[in-house]
Amino acid sequence: MGNNSNPASHVFKRIAIFGVGLIGGSFALALKKAGTVQQVVGVGRSLASLQRAQELGIIDQIATSVEDAVRGADLILIAAPVAQTATILSAIQPYLQAGTVVTDAGSTKADVVAAAQQIMGEKLAQFVPAHPIAGRELNGPEAALSDLYVGKKVVITRLPENSVEDVNLVAYAWQQCGAIIHHLSPAEHDGVFASVSHLPHLLAYALVDDIARKPHAERLFQYAASGFRDFTRIAGSSPEMWRDISLANRDAMLQELDSYTAQLARLRAHLQADDGAAIEAIYTNAQLARHNWITAIESAEKQRKDGGD
Amino acid sequence: MGNNSNPASHVFKRIAIFGVGLIGGSFALALKKAGTVQQVVGVGRSLASLQRAQELGIIDQIATSVEDAVRGADLILIAAPVAQTATILSAIQPYLQAGTVVTDAGSTKADVVAAAQQIMGEKLAQFVPAHPIAGRELNGPEAALSDLYVGKKVVITRLPENSVEDVNLVAYAWQQCGAIIHHLSPAEHDGVFASVSHLPHLLAYALVDDIARKPHAERLFQYAASGFRDFTRIAGSSPEMWRDISLANRDAMLQELDSYTAQLARLRAHLQADDGAAIEAIYTNAQLARHNWITAIESAEKQRKDGGD
Repeated sequence: MGNNSNPASHVFKRIAIFGVGLIGGSFALALKKAGTVQQVVGVGRSLASLQRAQELGIIDQIATSVEDAVRGADLILIAAPVAQTATILSAIQPYLQAGTVVTDAGSTKADVVAAAQQIMGEKLAQFVPAHPIAGRELNGPEAALSDLYVGKKVVITRLPENSVEDVNLVAYAWQQCGAIIHHLSPAEHDGVFASVSHLPHLLAYALVDDIARKPHAERLFQYAASGFRDFTRIAGSSPEMWRDISLANRDAMLQELDSYTAQLARLRAHLQADDGAAIEAIYTNAQLARHNWITAIESAEKQRKDGGD
Repeated sequence: MGNNSNPASHVFKRIAIFGVGLIGGSFALALKKAGTVQQVVGVGRSLASLQRAQELGIIDQIATSVEDAVRGADLILIAAPVAQTATILSAIQPYLQAGTVVTDAGSTKADVVAAAQQIMGEKLAQFVPAHPIAGRELNGPEAALSDLYVGKKVVITRLPENSVEDVNLVAYAWQQCGAIIHHLSPAEHDGVFASVSHLPHLLAYALVDDIARKPHAERLFQYAASGFRDFTRIAGSSPEMWRDISLANRDAMLQELDSYTAQLARLRAHLQADDGAAIEAIYTNAQLARHNWITAIESAEKQRKDGGD
């Protein structure tokens, strides 16, 4: 973690952020609020976004080049759309100095790790992959919030090459944003999020599109109510972002989709056979599991607010 | 509609409600608030619920028998779980007087109509099937609200045998609750709600159960976040109620499920082929359709509040 041995009191001299939207912008605002960073420099494809981020106090400086952004940074966060990660790593690599740690905020990890392994060469150890589990339906610098990460999980999928110090530095930065650090392998991470996030997005998009293409779609939407609204809320998310995530996590997605399709086939057979007991068993198990999950997260939330662990 | 020719000023002398929970209780409270009913009598399997409903002012009287409940009523609402509808119709039929209109609040209509056709004999014309599109995650008389139906849709699936006057009387009662009346055939109704309500419930239950049965379910739930929470909210609904609805609307459910499974197969093929453009086309169409839907309901809501149509 550079030349500081005590992350509990570290102040970053210069943090470079690639992508100053919701994720990168909220990271910058949180660290500034915590007094944990002296200077934030922004990099991005849209000059208008960078200027807006500067006006909003998210960044102190707009980098004139990748080389300029990377020079002297103790931490670099890649918070651009996940499909750009490899391009950004390639751009950074030649200028990356010893002592600079690079991390990312991508929703998939195995593809990012594979790209880093191809691109980073002898600097691979300086890249600590991570994924903050937070979001809003809004995007861009205007959507950034200093408290977006408070109480949220950040999953670090460390590489065998990473030093303990560099992993701790990334964890420290996110902890300063109020986040709780978890560790998974890249494959574990992608399997988990395929199941509880990426597949549900695909399912919600699939349902709305299926309905919208029916000849009587207008009548169908007319009678859709609050249950449908909540079920499909995630189908309001960015199609480009979720296309990229679907492709980046393709193998895990296919596996989860097959498991789910098999489940639907079982339910179809129970329906066809008028087997109320079998249908009720699935519905009841789901209701109970969801109830237990909600109870557990509410209890963890309460413990956290009470200053517990 | 009995002996009153002007529903715009009608006051019901006696309304009998089978099932004094959320749906039946809210109906009674709304009509009382509107001053549209002189006496409400409750019928049900649980004496405790009936007594609670009386304490809460939902009903004025607990019926001592079905005969007692039905005698002198100008309107009867069946608001018990939908699996009991046939039993209740059979119990009512022998005592049903000319001039009394019977309606129901079941979430499926073709099965209710089929049961009524079998049971009601020459009194079939007196049964006007309907479905109020409103609900809460709570049940029982305590959950009843006088404004539950304000601005909500009530779908009447009239029978060819129904008189215009009887249909208007049922519409009038729901309008007095603040509801907006729609008309569909029973088959249209069941197809629409299979698509936008019953299938989504099955899909949400199926996903939570699928995850809960995996060996690493605990880890999966640990990382489930707000998107998962909204997507699965309807899997917190009553398993018994949704088992009954699934079975009652089996044919339409199977058709919608097959359409959706074919959609998932298409998405699977696109994923397998790394066809980002095809995936994005589906996601984009879904996002747009949902956006248009939300815009339309918000505009209708605003129009209603502004006193428009």
